[in-house]
Amino acid sequence: MTQLSRRHLLTGAAGAAAATALTPFAASSARAAAPAAGKQGPSFYRYKVGSIEGTSLSDGANTFPMPDTFVRNIPKEQALAAAEAAYMPKGMVRVPFNPQLFNTGGKLVLIDCGSGSTPNPNVGHLMANLKAAGVEAKDVDMVIMSHLHPDHTNGIKAADGSLAFPNAEIKVPAADWAFWMSDENAAKAESNPMMKNYFANVRRVYTGVPADRVTKYEWGKEVAPGITSIDANGHTPGHTAFAVASGNARILVQSDVTNIPEFFLRNPDWHVAFDIDPVKAVETRRKFYDMASAEKALVVGFHFSFPSIGYVEKDGAKYRLVPIAWSPAI
Amino acid sequence: MTQLSRRHLLTGAAGAAAATALTPFAASSARAAAPAAGKQGPSFYRYKVGSIEGTSLSDGANTFPMPDTFVRNIPKEQALAAAEAAYMPKGMVRVPFNPQLFNTGGKLVLIDCGSGSTPNPNVGHLMANLKAAGVEAKDVDMVIMSHLHPDHTNGIKAADGSLAFPNAEIKVPAADWAFWMSDENAAKAESNPMMKNYFANVRRVYTGVPADRVTKYEWGKEVAPGITSIDANGHTPGHTAFAVASGNARILVQSDVTNIPEFFLRNPDWHVAFDIDPVKAVETRRKFYDMASAEKALVVGFHFSFPSIGYVEKDGAKYRLVPIAWSPAI
Repeated sequence: MTQLSRRHLLTGAAGAAAATALTPFAASSARAAAPAAGKQGPSFYRYKVGSIEGTSLSDGANTFPMPDTFVRNIPKEQALAAAEAAYMPKGMVRVPFNPQLFNTGGKLVLIDCGSGSTPNPNVGHLMANLKAAGVEAKDVDMVIMSHLHPDHTNGIKAADGSLAFPNAEIKVPAADWAFWMSDENAAKAESNPMMKNYFANVRRVYTGVPADRVTKYEWGKEVAPGITSIDANGHTPGHTAFAVASGNARILVQSDVTNIPEFFLRNPDWHVAFDIDPVKAVETRRKFYDMASAEKALVVGFHFSFPSIGYVEKDGAKYRLVPIAWSPAI
Repeated sequence: MTQLSRRHLLTGAAGAAAATALTPFAASSARAAAPAAGKQGPSFYRYKVGSIEGTSLSDGANTFPMPDTFVRNIPKEQALAAAEAAYMPKGMVRVPFNPQLFNTGGKLVLIDCGSGSTPNPNVGHLMANLKAAGVEAKDVDMVIMSHLHPDHTNGIKAADGSLAFPNAEIKVPAADWAFWMSDENAAKAESNPMMKNYFANVRRVYTGVPADRVTKYEWGKEVAPGITSIDANGHTPGHTAFAVASGNARILVQSDVTNIPEFFLRNPDWHVAFDIDPVKAVETRRKFYDMASAEKALVVGFHFSFPSIGYVEKDGAKYRLVPIAWSPAI
């Protein structure tokens, strides 16, 4: 270092002031101002579960005016107050979306695949974040759906209608498939605009997907190496959580056992609008979180804030989420 | 999409099973298994403060066996219990490090610059994350030190001893400079190994830095466009926090008003080993956090987990940190 060899020693306050500058300081104002980046960095985060490598991938986060019925069984004012207490913009609710990729050593397995191509600029970023993480869509071996709501399953199709993961087996919960593909159920949902849309969406998305690509899975099975499906129904009839395990390590992928934790972990008896059987969903939630908190398990939540991983603690009749400390290395 | 044109319609559970696959599914097992990435993604996070663009940059995180005196005024067992309650590995303490970059429109201003070149592989990652964020070290106009502890200031030098930010003005708190550069203070610290090391380190790091590169700043001044220095002494005699403001937006850069929040926000009266005047540090902490919680200010903490930004709430005589929800877009 030239400065060192020139012995510009600043060994004291007095010395500092007296030191002669042989290397004049080029005024930075002579250089052009650096432009603002204007965009966020990639949102992917890696973690290990034993020998399995997990990658949390953001599909985006949506902030929108809270619908009157976002929480069905409490006054809207109470939900708005909870949102504000969680620092969401006044009158709004914020919902993030986080599919998970697992490299099991032999297989690249994606759990849920986001909203896919959509006019909403706040979501549909899975493929960009996957690419940022160095993963090619063609290398994904399997996409496992936790359930068949659009924010979890629509990303199976690219904008041009082709399969977004051209070499992947698609695994769907048998009970969800049976429910959504039932013409009888669809007919019953005609009077409910939200449900009517959901039925139409599932059919639209899976239209054209070759039958041999889609495998229906049951609960309590190893659906991929180290990944076991867990009955978590209530949110939808086939809604599934997962245990990802390797050696002594285990992580629970809760899918939508709760929607946003600021609401439904803090208030586990609240019914989110999207629960098909909200009473069963509450029962599932309490059972799941009593287990997760007792074993101090790491939990991944599709609707937790990125990187969407944390510990859940009992807090009287409620629960609280303690986000993991971001690790800059794995 | 070929599948669509071939009308492999899966419109029901029965239809799905019956559909003929004209596009046989290439078994993914025929492809080579994707290798694990084996490393974390970049750790930078962008946010806006009015028209100012902030970037939180991880310099790393260090997890180490808790020294007996990490918290001076409580039994070690109590600190170990707090660490375990915060999901740190048993017997260990985890300390992250997060410098902040602000693009003020005219200037690229870095607050603190990490540990620099060090044999410890867990730290010293600022330059890599800065590069990942698309910023060249030569484009940084100013590096402002909150105080002159090694994890904040050593990164001013590259591994070869040259200036890591070759075009940057270096701003140091006048009171810290006077304290650390005083031969009288250094002599008094001879009997305290930690303080002796700190005095030696400051002198080593600033040896060879041309005097005209280093500006001493006072408190209550706009040290860079939109960035005002705040007296936060106690941790060190010149320890400084910052308010970054633009339009109606404001964020507080707390520097080391608390070390890790799991310990010192939850227990604001605990004395971290590194506080030079721990009683004053506690007074500063309470004053700072009473203000921050009252105005619901966003707070950046050098030792908060990346992205190191959150809201602080009063919780009786304690405080709690509510990390911000990660925004996948800015």
